[in-house]
Amino acid sequence: MSHRWDVIGGAPNGGYLMTIALRALHQAFQRPDPVTVTGHFLEPCPAGEVEVATQLVRFGSHATGTARLSREDRIRILLTATLGDLAAKGGPSHVTGEPPQLPPPDECVGVPEDAEVPPIVERFDMRLDPACAGWAVGEPTGEARMAAWVRFADGRDPDTLSLPLFADSLPPAVLNVLDDVSWVPTIELTVHMRGRPAPGWLRIVAATRFLVDGYLEEDAEIWDSEGRLVALSRQLALVRTTG
Amino acid sequence: MSHRWDVIGGAPNGGYLMTIALRALHQAFQRPDPVTVTGHFLEPCPAGEVEVATQLVRFGSHATGTARLSREDRIRILLTATLGDLAAKGGPSHVTGEPPQLPPPDECVGVPEDAEVPPIVERFDMRLDPACAGWAVGEPTGEARMAAWVRFADGRDPDTLSLPLFADSLPPAVLNVLDDVSWVPTIELTVHMRGRPAPGWLRIVAATRFLVDGYLEEDAEIWDSEGRLVALSRQLALVRTTG
Repeated sequence: MSHRWDVIGGAPNGGYLMTIALRALHQAFQRPDPVTVTGHFLEPCPAGEVEVATQLVRFGSHATGTARLSREDRIRILLTATLGDLAAKGGPSHVTGEPPQLPPPDECVGVPEDAEVPPIVERFDMRLDPACAGWAVGEPTGEARMAAWVRFADGRDPDTLSLPLFADSLPPAVLNVLDDVSWVPTIELTVHMRGRPAPGWLRIVAATRFLVDGYLEEDAEIWDSEGRLVALSRQLALVRTTG
Repeated sequence: MSHRWDVIGGAPNGGYLMTIALRALHQAFQRPDPVTVTGHFLEPCPAGEVEVATQLVRFGSHATGTARLSREDRIRILLTATLGDLAAKGGPSHVTGEPPQLPPPDECVGVPEDAEVPPIVERFDMRLDPACAGWAVGEPTGEARMAAWVRFADGRDPDTLSLPLFADSLPPAVLNVLDDVSWVPTIELTVHMRGRPAPGWLRIVAATRFLVDGYLEEDAEIWDSEGRLVALSRQLALVRTTG
């Protein structure tokens, strides 16, 4: 495991760690797509060598199992996932949600070239909706919402296995309502893969409605370049403040 | 396990089974509240004797483990949960969501006394918002939304352990957009417990925005009698139709 996905504070991004555990399950199952994956984040995991132990629980029309990601003999992430084949699905459709409306990527806010940023920021090409960027200049918008264009910085296209990584890639939406946040540790993150993403930019929108006594949910939608929903995610997290 | 929680088709309700597995973890952990629980539903589980095998993975400020509910030596539900103490939480709050607006229980739609209903319906006192009841008389409203007052029929008050059962108690919201649904099997259900419910009625609102090729998410909010959010849930499910 590489330092290249570290967030501020020196530990790798939770979605990145989840993707490592998910890839191990994916190899063991020989199924093309994760359908739903849940990670419980037990303790921070510094960069370095990790072990993933997988256990297959059930093969059927879907396949389900668990993966435990450990470092230095301590389990850091407990993952449960159901995999299947999203190309084989069939049935009725009825959609009421719409992709977030964002200015084109060139009119959104990128990371300044001279900024000192944690390594993970350099792995993505991320363009934040200017309407959600107030937190970055010390002016939280007052609405716990983030929206951005996102793609891998190295030009690789997204796939269903990488969607949990994208789901956890935006700055926490709560930064736009609190100005003294020090850390937002995830307790649990669940991602539903709803389709295979088309090549190109993803649009991600994330929001928090209920921050209560330091606990919050953050719900995200991921849309592909053809305007189709490809993932829904929800996480339960804690908010640590400096105040 | 009792037949008293069977849904149509003769298998017990998924939320009920999840609650059995969760109670086993709760006893093993000696923590007061589940905080987040995810169940993967591997295959239907007819009523009868079940076994629950629990495994504790981590004790810390939260405690995390898995439970496997089996019947006749086949694992039916794989559950992962993190438990803690919701009375001990502290930190900032910022809430933008509001409880659903419903007519008073007496002006909502109960189950007709002479109706032939599956056993689980008799375990709850449920009063459906008339604005969401069209499906029940063959006139789906066109909006995939359900809202209701719900409490236990035997007068028992809700607690955090029973919230996953309530989260799966309403008729599927998709019944209000499709008139040929035969079954909505849950693949995975995640429930975040956000507070200990006050005694009395719960208000539950559930909605589906993305039914795509037979897969849907259903998001629910549970509010207590004092107007506080006590749980958020999301499930991934399949829709089977007769058409």
